[in-house]
Amino acid sequence: MSPGTTIFEHMSGLARAHGAVNLGQGFPDFGWPQDVIDKAAAALTGAASQYPPMRGIPELRQAVADHYRAHQGLELSADEVIVTSGATEALAAALLALIEPGDEVLLFQPLYDSYLPMVRRAGGVPKLVRLAPPDWKLTAEAIEAAITPKTRLMVFNNPHNPAAVAFDRGQLQLLADACVRHDLIAVSDEVWEHVVFDGRRHVPLMALPGMRERTVKVGSAGKIFSLTGWKVGWLVAAPGLAERVARSHQFLTFTTPPNLQTAAAYGLGKDRGYFDDMRAALQRSRDRLAAGLVEIGYVPLASQGSYFLSVDLPVSGIDADDVSFCERIVREAGVAAIPVSAFYAEDPVRHVVRLCFAKADATLDAGLEGLARAR
Amino acid sequence: MSPGTTIFEHMSGLARAHGAVNLGQGFPDFGWPQDVIDKAAAALTGAASQYPPMRGIPELRQAVADHYRAHQGLELSADEVIVTSGATEALAAALLALIEPGDEVLLFQPLYDSYLPMVRRAGGVPKLVRLAPPDWKLTAEAIEAAITPKTRLMVFNNPHNPAAVAFDRGQLQLLADACVRHDLIAVSDEVWEHVVFDGRRHVPLMALPGMRERTVKVGSAGKIFSLTGWKVGWLVAAPGLAERVARSHQFLTFTTPPNLQTAAAYGLGKDRGYFDDMRAALQRSRDRLAAGLVEIGYVPLASQGSYFLSVDLPVSGIDADDVSFCERIVREAGVAAIPVSAFYAEDPVRHVVRLCFAKADATLDAGLEGLARAR
Ligand SMILES: CSCCC(=O)C(=O)O
Ligand SMILES: CSCCC(=O)C(=O)O
Repeated sequence: MSPGTTIFEHMSGLARAHGAVNLGQGFPDFGWPQDVIDKAAAALTGAASQYPPMRGIPELRQAVADHYRAHQGLELSADEVIVTSGATEALAAALLALIEPGDEVLLFQPLYDSYLPMVRRAGGVPKLVRLAPPDWKLTAEAIEAAITPKTRLMVFNNPHNPAAVAFDRGQLQLLADACVRHDLIAVSDEVWEHVVFDGRRHVPLMALPGMRERTVKVGSAGKIFSLTGWKVGWLVAAPGLAERVARSHQFLTFTTPPNLQTAAAYGLGKDRGYFDDMRAALQRSRDRLAAGLVEIGYVPLASQGSYFLSVDLPVSGIDADDVSFCERIVREAGVAAIPVSAFYAEDPVRHVVRLCFAKADATLDAGLEGLARAR
Repeated sequence: MSPGTTIFEHMSGLARAHGAVNLGQGFPDFGWPQDVIDKAAAALTGAASQYPPMRGIPELRQAVADHYRAHQGLELSADEVIVTSGATEALAAALLALIEPGDEVLLFQPLYDSYLPMVRRAGGVPKLVRLAPPDWKLTAEAIEAAITPKTRLMVFNNPHNPAAVAFDRGQLQLLADACVRHDLIAVSDEVWEHVVFDGRRHVPLMALPGMRERTVKVGSAGKIFSLTGWKVGWLVAAPGLAERVARSHQFLTFTTPPNLQTAAAYGLGKDRGYFDDMRAALQRSRDRLAAGLVEIGYVPLASQGSYFLSVDLPVSGIDADDVSFCERIVREAGVAAIPVSAFYAEDPVRHVVRLCFAKADATLDAGLEGLARAR
């Protein structure tokens, strides 16, 4: 991997170079709402292409608050919503705003690639709790062992990428207990909140007792509407916290294209059926990929949410570590995937490979053909 | 001003609240290229709304390189261009990438509002050189006096907001001399590069001897095409420097909406006549505002570039500091302007008020009516 390249960039670059089916980087090739796109195109006038307010356009801030009330039972005001240029910027703004040099920050491996560099850039000292397949379970002991009097912040991702776990209330309670007991702020990356399967309902960390005032919840229109390149995200937090993060946001990007904000606001107002259908379509894709994998001899791990499904290499009878398997198959079998070890900063799990199933049937089938050849 | 609010947000908010003519925040209300907007709308498909490459789409990176070759004589390769979500993000990425805690950073007052907080957030120690009206001149002595063995970086803005100076080669040579002598990196915010008047030609800092390898040049499609809300910017730097800044960019926003990148690439390829006409239209607006101000008894300072023109209050016979004048006129005279003291971190110039002339004639005339009432 060339320096300064994320694993996602690296594998997408190899996929382009080798004409491979890209089941690596998490973006869909179907399923976006055309009416939301049309709305964005219609809102693209010159006058409406000037600086919107730094915290986001009022319609989108209100739409986010209304959406979370309707779908997750959260009571929020539009003032508690800050629009950002994607969830990545929301995370960067939160970490730069809330970490003082020397603060310890609790992180959970596997972790999304921006967390650790941003915690370090903010001067934070990362403390890692390790989760591992097949169940990726949190324990009170592991959490407690990583906390010291210097710990100020926790960063958690639910539903989890790449573990594809939708953590339930019992698991989240362990995090909430630790936050309340040790007076920590939680940055809760919930970009996959709508993408949970098998009738599950997403539980926002903010909804747990004691968490309303101490949680920064991060969301993403790109993930919700399968328009990953739009880079419209937001964070939601109690007024004092939101204010601190807004101050950091204003000097990272200042604002986000207003026509995309208008379209996201419109999309968030869609009825429940839209979100159910979106989930159902992705669940069908998950099931198609899982069934296809089993047929050709791979053993998939469970996927409760997100765009992702992983396979266990040794259990699938493959004698290779995840990185060499991924480097080989993109070249030889024409399929790009992501090695899960890339999500660990230390003591990596090296025997799991992540596949993105948010793809049209033909793409999945082509990927499966390659994976069959790769055995 | 409420905490966490920039002066631009604050005055635009007051302008909205009081129904005032907004000559404060720098955004145009006319003059955008409809064909560039149409291009952005046409490129807004679902498939094209997925993650583009982290450094930007190849067409835009090439277009930026070609544009600077054609317009500024710079020899650049597309590899040296990194696309960002606006120039604000380019500045943030550069400062976070290039400053180590304890490094001293040379800054020039008046300064754009993001410089100082981002330098501080990166752990830098700001060293300020003060420029003042009416001529805003750099001197070798003032630059030299602010540099110590700990100085690593300089941040400069040319054409300058709010001073409205297009620094000439002689002035820039003073900066280049200091950079070469003390082995400094220069972050050169050139977002107003196309907006220079009276036949001037913009001189990129990178073009001065010894500066090619040590300059990060920042540009903005929003400013070039009068589409300030698009938040498409870029930075240009020699490969090693570009690589370092890209690593920082990837965790701030990762990417920028691809349809806006496509449109910016198209726009940068317009012929010289387009840019000449844009400048000429803005120069007419500058002259209309300046003449109108003189007519009603204000004394404007020179404006060689940018969207801005300032008035000197005491010389105009107004006995008030800039902040109280601006706070009064937005309420009582229905005109929003920006106090230049807001651009100083210490020892502010308090007698100059900045007006944005990138407005339709009717807006300028309405602003002038208000300013006449404000006397
Ligand atoms: C920002 S590129 C990575 C996209 C993603 O969420 C993933 O593939 O995990
Ligand atoms: C990002 S809001 C400020 C816009 C601007 O360049 C200015 O008004 O100086």
